[in-house]
Amino acid sequence: MKGLMQDWQLTTNKILEHAKRINPTREIVTRRVEGNIERTTYGDLFDMSKQVSTALQDEGIGLGDRVATLGWNSERHMASWYGAMGIGAVLHTVNPRLHPEQIAWIINHAEDKVLIFDKTFLPIVEAIKDNIPTVKSFVIYAGADTMPENTLGAVPFDIWIDGRSQNVRWGDFPEDTACGLCYTSGTTGDPKGVLYSHRSNVLHTMITMQRDAIGMGANDVVLPVVPMFHANAWGLTFSCPATGANMVMPGAQMDGASIYELLDTEKVTITAAVPTVWLMLLTYLQENDLKLPHLNKVIIGGSAVPEKILRAFEEDYEVDVVHAWGMTETSPLGTLGTLPPHMLDADIDTRMAQKLKQGRPPFGVELKIVDDEHNDVAWDGETSGRLLVRGPGIAAAYFKGAGGKVVDEDNWFDTGDVANMDQYGTMQITDRAKDVIKSGGEWISSIDIENIAVGHPKVANAAAIGVYHPKWDERPLLIIQPVEGETPSKEEIFAALEGKIAKWWTPDDITFVDNIPLGATGKINKLALRDTFKDYKLPTA
Amino acid sequence: MKGLMQDWQLTTNKILEHAKRINPTREIVTRRVEGNIERTTYGDLFDMSKQVSTALQDEGIGLGDRVATLGWNSERHMASWYGAMGIGAVLHTVNPRLHPEQIAWIINHAEDKVLIFDKTFLPIVEAIKDNIPTVKSFVIYAGADTMPENTLGAVPFDIWIDGRSQNVRWGDFPEDTACGLCYTSGTTGDPKGVLYSHRSNVLHTMITMQRDAIGMGANDVVLPVVPMFHANAWGLTFSCPATGANMVMPGAQMDGASIYELLDTEKVTITAAVPTVWLMLLTYLQENDLKLPHLNKVIIGGSAVPEKILRAFEEDYEVDVVHAWGMTETSPLGTLGTLPPHMLDADIDTRMAQKLKQGRPPFGVELKIVDDEHNDVAWDGETSGRLLVRGPGIAAAYFKGAGGKVVDEDNWFDTGDVANMDQYGTMQITDRAKDVIKSGGEWISSIDIENIAVGHPKVANAAAIGVYHPKWDERPLLIIQPVEGETPSKEEIFAALEGKIAKWWTPDDITFVDNIPLGATGKINKLALRDTFKDYKLPTA
Ligand SMILES: Nc1ncnc2c1ncn2[C@@H]1O[C@H](COP(=O)(O)O)[C@@H](O)[C@H]1O
Repeated sequence: MKGLMQDWQLTTNKILEHAKRINPTREIVTRRVEGNIERTTYGDLFDMSKQVSTALQDEGIGLGDRVATLGWNSERHMASWYGAMGIGAVLHTVNPRLHPEQIAWIINHAEDKVLIFDKTFLPIVEAIKDNIPTVKSFVIYAGADTMPENTLGAVPFDIWIDGRSQNVRWGDFPEDTACGLCYTSGTTGDPKGVLYSHRSNVLHTMITMQRDAIGMGANDVVLPVVPMFHANAWGLTFSCPATGANMVMPGAQMDGASIYELLDTEKVTITAAVPTVWLMLLTYLQENDLKLPHLNKVIIGGSAVPEKILRAFEEDYEVDVVHAWGMTETSPLGTLGTLPPHMLDADIDTRMAQKLKQGRPPFGVELKIVDDEHNDVAWDGETSGRLLVRGPGIAAAYFKGAGGKVVDEDNWFDTGDVANMDQYGTMQITDRAKDVIKSGGEWISSIDIENIAVGHPKVANAAAIGVYHPKWDERPLLIIQPVEGETPSKEEIFAALEGKIAKWWTPDDITFVDNIPLGATGKINKLALRDTFKDYKLPTA
Repeated sequence: MKGLMQDWQLTTNKILEHAKRINPTREIVTRRVEGNIERTTYGDLFDMSKQVSTALQDEGIGLGDRVATLGWNSERHMASWYGAMGIGAVLHTVNPRLHPEQIAWIINHAEDKVLIFDKTFLPIVEAIKDNIPTVKSFVIYAGADTMPENTLGAVPFDIWIDGRSQNVRWGDFPEDTACGLCYTSGTTGDPKGVLYSHRSNVLHTMITMQRDAIGMGANDVVLPVVPMFHANAWGLTFSCPATGANMVMPGAQMDGASIYELLDTEKVTITAAVPTVWLMLLTYLQENDLKLPHLNKVIIGGSAVPEKILRAFEEDYEVDVVHAWGMTETSPLGTLGTLPPHMLDADIDTRMAQKLKQGRPPFGVELKIVDDEHNDVAWDGETSGRLLVRGPGIAAAYFKGAGGKVVDEDNWFDTGDVANMDQYGTMQITDRAKDVIKSGGEWISSIDIENIAVGHPKVANAAAIGVYHPKWDERPLLIIQPVEGETPSKEEIFAALEGKIAKWWTPDDITFVDNIPLGATGKINKLALRDTFKDYKLPTA
């Protein structure tokens, strides 16, 4: 027997329609690439997005067609999303930090028909324009007056939508219709596309709106530093209009001074970004003796939160840090580190130790940890295994079947992360499966070693990788990028590790480099490091 | 093109599974009908619910079969819900405050096969037992030692589930499967059943978990005074386990002293009930000079919040009042009165005036106000019309087609309420469509008149109804139930109304009664009043 409730399809257009009706005057504040600040409302955004829909339809775009963006966080970028999604086109966010060749490869794989981009990326687009034959039109986020010269026959976004009809019908399709496309550059093989549906985006939005997840309300002012091309800005482009929170969009400027200026002038209450961004901000705050009186909560994810960032926010600035874990394939939020009830009265060190873990899954995300035989391991806060995840916001396959079957018979998706869980569902990532160091068949967590090393005042960044060892198969090598002007010794670093990790986890050697290479989403590029150090001879070997 | 995300069906069993995994030690504290306090955890509740499923299966209950409860809020009642819903049976909450004949009518209409009830209601069940032939088994919420004598061949609940297998599979059906049944006693015609689906209950849960809706977190302690038989306890039986909030269940005792005791000893942070309950509590607090140091938020709905209740909570006890509107057909929450951004800095009177309105719809609820020709009226905070509603938690039809077609071609459900909306989506109920007083073709809001009258210190309750007038067709008669021991005069009441409503809204007469009749959900029974006063001759007539 079926229930007799309404068939209200979960399509993303309903989010902006809600904002238009209920919070029409709440704002999106954008720093333009030209540097000036632009203020828009959800009411305006709705109108702009409808015009984008008409502009796209006039280009022949319809259900299932891919529309690509190479864009910073801005209200124009958001209008492109809602405009494309509303008519059932697929909005494809391309990561501009990738190599131009990879960008071209991705655009071709996606068969994008329209490319809308910020002028910052004009050189990239000019460089690849002859290699992306599916793209028929180019649009640049600019007005008539700010339009750069180009050889693409591109139109300025503002002119492109100007005067177009807003009478286009949105959401005229089932909720499992494709809605967004985001490629994730696995460390092996070609990039793979995650194809979000309207349903998955709407449910991810509802999941993250829970108070213990992001939990913003209409009274919040949210600054997503995390880019819209990085796993949907963690869903903030949906959850902010859904709640009516104001948004502050940093455009191209994510340095400490620029972010601080926005936090301060716009009285931002919630912000979100990867650790690197916060390191820049904290340095700027310290150098200029500034405070953060308006900020309540900072969501940090994408890679593990270093203790010095956590402590600085919590202790020096009284900002609640919510450590979050997720991935492109999980829409992306999977766990969030809001303190659980049994930790509320714990002492500061216990609370900080809890917050260094990746957090707990909200309702709508299921986690499982398994050993090599696919058996559940104990949730004891110690035993680690492969982290599997399941839910309405989790990928079931990649675009065009890339990578083959990615879920098991019970729909569990293997994250490639290695983690443990405690009895209250707190998850702690101990490694990437492919980064784990296997010494004599036992796992050593590279992340643990790195976190401690990065805590040393002379260390800017650290990476532990496994290198060949004749007896143990692999042993850890620790690679250190010193703080500028500092020259730490091996002994100092070994001393910092001592007593904090099991003795047999101690790296067999430490080496210093000027720069640890980062990937396109700001994470350490271990593939490159493993390549560089593939012939490294350990003193113990 | 379809998205490639997981097909994770929205079934209610996933809520309790989440609680079991992530918040297994969070508690449900129940006041038994025997008076003692029982403590259970979500972990225990999960186990109990699984055993209920097996017990039901052993009675031959399966997909689509109706299982009825006549129960107070308790952990055993919750286990019955999850146990029945998990195997795809339909949990039918029967309102014990209805007349026994009506209860029998409803059970027969629903064709309930099992009836599980609190011993408080044994006399009712004994009285109707020969008239409910579909019911094959009776279960009483009791243990072996607390089981009452009966002629039903009933089993005690604890024995019924004791030792049963927990190995039953849950959620093995599509999300649009029927899940819950609740009859609403319309003021005309027979009661009509709202047939919730798993999907509608899960989505309603996610909607109400938004911070500006109920917004509880794992750290909250929630006391649902609102009964589980009254529109699903406003969804708290789902949203609390979904977030991991502790629950405090008042059982049969809802007087001021009993509720205060639970609020205080259990350190309740959020509670919810109809205004009548709060009147009792506030009287008790004042008489005993008590405070509410733990309570943060009180959700009040079911009928309009009187200003004296609002002000008492906000000003005397520093508790945030969230006025909520909804109905059985809306799962039930439709709007919630969390202060919108533009009201945060307003003075206290402006804020209180805002909070007397019924609030704003969260994402997932769409509202529309139309005039008699079904045209949208302006959202100006003044023009009122019929309130229509749409969303995944809104009824599309009644059980067995009762009442015929209840949504229009665009799926809008007519609530039967009359309301206005302001430009920020704040909805204000001005009347029930059938209670509206039509004077010379113009509408007079009975609720406005009642609210002002109830604000008078000598008035305990008030009802305005339209009675026959030869010239105006209908004119308002105001019926007053004085506070015990008080004898207000007509002049005093007219003076209280003066200047607060339009002159032509002033009642043509005032009359005093010992008792204003209430319906089964605690609301004024205007049908009965209209009947009593149908031949009332107004002095102006
Ligand atoms: N809070 C975190 N701590 C550690 N690793 C993380 C965290 N958040 C994300 N990651 C890593 O980033 C991966 C996802 O990368 P991406 O899809 O590019 O966002 C995850 O599988 C993790 O390995």
